[in-house]
Amino acid sequence: MCRWAAYLGEEVFLEDIVSAPCHSLIAQSHCAQEAKSATNGDGFGLAWYGDRAEPGLYRDILPAWSDPNLKSLCRQIKSSLFLAHVRAATGGGTSRANCHPFVSGRWSFMHNGQISGFERIRRRLEAAVCDTLYDQRQGTTDSELFFLLMLEEGLDADPQAAVARAARRVIEASEAVGMAASFKLTAAFSDGDSLFAVRYATDAQAPTLYTRDGATGRCIVSEPFDREGESWQAVPPSSFVTMTRQGMTVSPFEPASAKLAMAG
Amino acid sequence: MCRWAAYLGEEVFLEDIVSAPCHSLIAQSHCAQEAKSATNGDGFGLAWYGDRAEPGLYRDILPAWSDPNLKSLCRQIKSSLFLAHVRAATGGGTSRANCHPFVSGRWSFMHNGQISGFERIRRRLEAAVCDTLYDQRQGTTDSELFFLLMLEEGLDADPQAAVARAARRVIEASEAVGMAASFKLTAAFSDGDSLFAVRYATDAQAPTLYTRDGATGRCIVSEPFDREGESWQAVPPSSFVTMTRQGMTVSPFEPASAKLAMAG
Amino acid sequence: MCRWAAYLGEEVFLEDIVSAPCHSLIAQSHCAQEAKSATNGDGFGLAWYGDRAEPGLYRDILPAWSDPNLKSLCRQIKSSLFLAHVRAATGGGTSRANCHPFVSGRWSFMHNGQISGFERIRRRLEAAVCDTLYDQRQGTTDSELFFLLMLEEGLDADPQAAVARAARRVIEASEAVGMAASFKLTAAFSDGDSLFAVRYATDAQAPTLYTRDGATGRCIVSEPFDREGESWQAVPPSSFVTMTRQGMTVSPFEPASAKLAMAG
Amino acid sequence: MCRWAAYLGEEVFLEDIVSAPCHSLIAQSHCAQEAKSATNGDGFGLAWYGDRAEPGLYRDILPAWSDPNLKSLCRQIKSSLFLAHVRAATGGGTSRANCHPFVSGRWSFMHNGQISGFERIRRRLEAAVCDTLYDQRQGTTDSELFFLLMLEEGLDADPQAAVARAARRVIEASEAVGMAASFKLTAAFSDGDSLFAVRYATDAQAPTLYTRDGATGRCIVSEPFDREGESWQAVPPSSFVTMTRQGMTVSPFEPASAKLAMAG
Repeated sequence: MCRWAAYLGEEVFLEDIVSAPCHSLIAQSHCAQEAKSATNGDGFGLAWYGDRAEPGLYRDILPAWSDPNLKSLCRQIKSSLFLAHVRAATGGGTSRANCHPFVSGRWSFMHNGQISGFERIRRRLEAAVCDTLYDQRQGTTDSELFFLLMLEEGLDADPQAAVARAARRVIEASEAVGMAASFKLTAAFSDGDSLFAVRYATDAQAPTLYTRDGATGRCIVSEPFDREGESWQAVPPSSFVTMTRQGMTVSPFEPASAKLAMAG
Repeated sequence: MCRWAAYLGEEVFLEDIVSAPCHSLIAQSHCAQEAKSATNGDGFGLAWYGDRAEPGLYRDILPAWSDPNLKSLCRQIKSSLFLAHVRAATGGGTSRANCHPFVSGRWSFMHNGQISGFERIRRRLEAAVCDTLYDQRQGTTDSELFFLLMLEEGLDADPQAAVARAARRVIEASEAVGMAASFKLTAAFSDGDSLFAVRYATDAQAPTLYTRDGATGRCIVSEPFDREGESWQAVPPSSFVTMTRQGMTVSPFEPASAKLAMAG
Repeated sequence: MCRWAAYLGEEVFLEDIVSAPCHSLIAQSHCAQEAKSATNGDGFGLAWYGDRAEPGLYRDILPAWSDPNLKSLCRQIKSSLFLAHVRAATGGGTSRANCHPFVSGRWSFMHNGQISGFERIRRRLEAAVCDTLYDQRQGTTDSELFFLLMLEEGLDADPQAAVARAARRVIEASEAVGMAASFKLTAAFSDGDSLFAVRYATDAQAPTLYTRDGATGRCIVSEPFDREGESWQAVPPSSFVTMTRQGMTVSPFEPASAKLAMAG
Repeated sequence: MCRWAAYLGEEVFLEDIVSAPCHSLIAQSHCAQEAKSATNGDGFGLAWYGDRAEPGLYRDILPAWSDPNLKSLCRQIKSSLFLAHVRAATGGGTSRANCHPFVSGRWSFMHNGQISGFERIRRRLEAAVCDTLYDQRQGTTDSELFFLLMLEEGLDADPQAAVARAARRVIEASEAVGMAASFKLTAAFSDGDSLFAVRYATDAQAPTLYTRDGATGRCIVSEPFDREGESWQAVPPSSFVTMTRQGMTVSPFEPASAKLAMAG
């Protein structure tokens, strides 16, 4: 089970969220408190927005706690919008290309959860993205592919609808091979302006999602850190979160119900 | 352009072929003499056969010349059959999963060359391998996929015919999207008993292939090393080489001519 | 706190000890059961003896559980004498040069424990080894330096006496700067013929050490794995273990009592 | 022989200097044109100043040309003062700790050149730095140690005098062991305000050093890139360069002539 944190607000050093507090994301990676897997030692990643429309991306396969580059980058770089992820592999080997976040143009994406039976529906899902998007695929994870599906389904035009249709793709692909669809999707993503998140599962066990409103910025995380002080709000299952600099909305989320045509 | 060497014969330390001579594969990786690309600094790999039917595999993304592990392994490990490869990336990122050799069961495979326009026919080729084989795909290279195609086309039953049919797959996929097929294939592979190699290109520029018969073993390489002393034999284009412990045969090679059915 | 295992006996695949059993060293590295630190994710190393007098050495900074090279090497390589180590850093950055085992000529060495206040006595200890040995120092750990001290103090001639004198060096260096000596030393080392181990601490908390006699080989480990079945014998504190192919002796161990002259 | 570039001026994206032009530092690393060693594939590093007094530091042992993190960081990060280095190892293994730049507090340092016979005078030089500085030593290179010597000799108070005294330390240490001093020093360093460089050798072969004045910033490099367009000025041997936001001065440089006392 992976762990992640995202921030939108006034410009801060990344380390204020990622590495400094004793219950920071990196501290969590070493010694989890709530999550099922004891350790998130299978790599990490950062996507942060700065002076360009596209985010910067830094990923590596070392444990987050032992990478001096990560520590220095988090200490030096300021950003008003960023995503950070620590990985516990559920599938796909340990390689940089399999580390979150994934980036495409101005979009970034990271995920906690998994598509069960992925090996049986992988090519079916890959076939649903256009050549241009498929050519961006660098790794082998279900998460990266789900992100490409979101892009294919119109992430630029309507983020929630795109995720709903991508989720529908997974359900349809599972059904097509005679499996009951089983996937867990607690994900955050951004276009550089807003920060979006979704909490969903095909069963009652959607991975947790929490938000926090601060004086100068908002966080959305897979699991709270810095437990004392400010309070974390649990987001209910089957929710879609939209954070902007002006505020935050939480709306119900379900996979698209309509049957989808194939790409191309 | 990648560079590789393979050996079959009496048991020797890997370093006798891979790293010791001044014109060894690793020395070549640092400062090429004939090849077009100046440096093979994008990773390396070893597959060697020992006490098991399946080969051992060691791959990393460091330049071969700077990896102390590689040096120690080559110094310590003895084998009577092994493949070694140094990479200059032509496509696919620098990751361990994109380094040669590739291994599946008892088979190992490494390649110098490339499939031009691969991004346009990648999924078409991926669709030609069965789920079980596709699930073994760890990286994104044309080379790994060609190896899976060879396995799909019956590598166990008839190695040369399998390569010929896999090559046909590439040509047909290119034609299906309206491209003139363009690929270069100088590859070596083994099942742990025999060592096979192929030299082929759709044009007149097939990458070079050389063999050498020694008192205690045979080498087949993409480019000669250790120029003095024993003599290297150039293998003509459109050839298929079969090396066993008893001898070596070179036969003409062409892609299969018959139209192929799709898998599954 | 690091964890290690060493084996002497009939030739076996490394994986039989290192990676195969569910309570193997690598399984332990991911989810410790007895040790104080939850995870040994700061690198690993193998030294194994084969056809040469000097051991092969393979070390990397990835967690042991996520390195496919390690898994393949352990599956492929057979040895009758080897040392394996998983690291939880106490000092010295995460780099290959700081991973155990350390090797010099035919000797290999690995350690669980640490020299407290090392930063205050580091150069004093470094000054006690000759230029030739010091030139072999690749990293910055107290463990590597202790190994060089052992070599300096005559490891070839009398292993136990060399360790005793090296320990004396640490105590004297501490006293020279006005510190109470505080170090923990649970270490294994080999010359390719015999396997030695020591359990010692300046206080009552010497890290654990266990041995096991099997039908075809003997193990000595920092912490038992494979708890069911064969029984593990705890080695008492202040002990020195000598394993040969003929048998095993355990003798009392104390640092040398005599004042030592400086090197060179 | 290593290669490096440093910049001081208006805030620019790092890639404008490091990775974008066809003759950029990274392009050079892959296929050198003037330097003696064909390839700088033994790691790289960046130190850049931003919102803190201390620089950010990013170093890795991959070839610069194959690291996607480096490419993304250079594309995303803006700075008005930074140092970038690509390494061809002359001594010291390939590890992050041996990659330039080295950083201490607000100071950063990088070097092309080497101290000949370093193994014979290493501890003598190490003994010349105080415990606090020595504890910062992470690697084994002559370059890192020379930087610590500069700090020991008062880099904060008088940069040129500190370098001159550090150079004297090397000469004296060589003489003390009966060697003719032989070292090459083309180095750049910064405190976050000014950019300094030195070109010196004990013989007539000081590695090259060039400067360039642009409309919005100044560069100082070990070897020109982007040959067309703006003109590069060669700095003569035995020179010390001081660049500020106001201008640049070049003054004669020689090692300190006075005999130096030992530290502490």
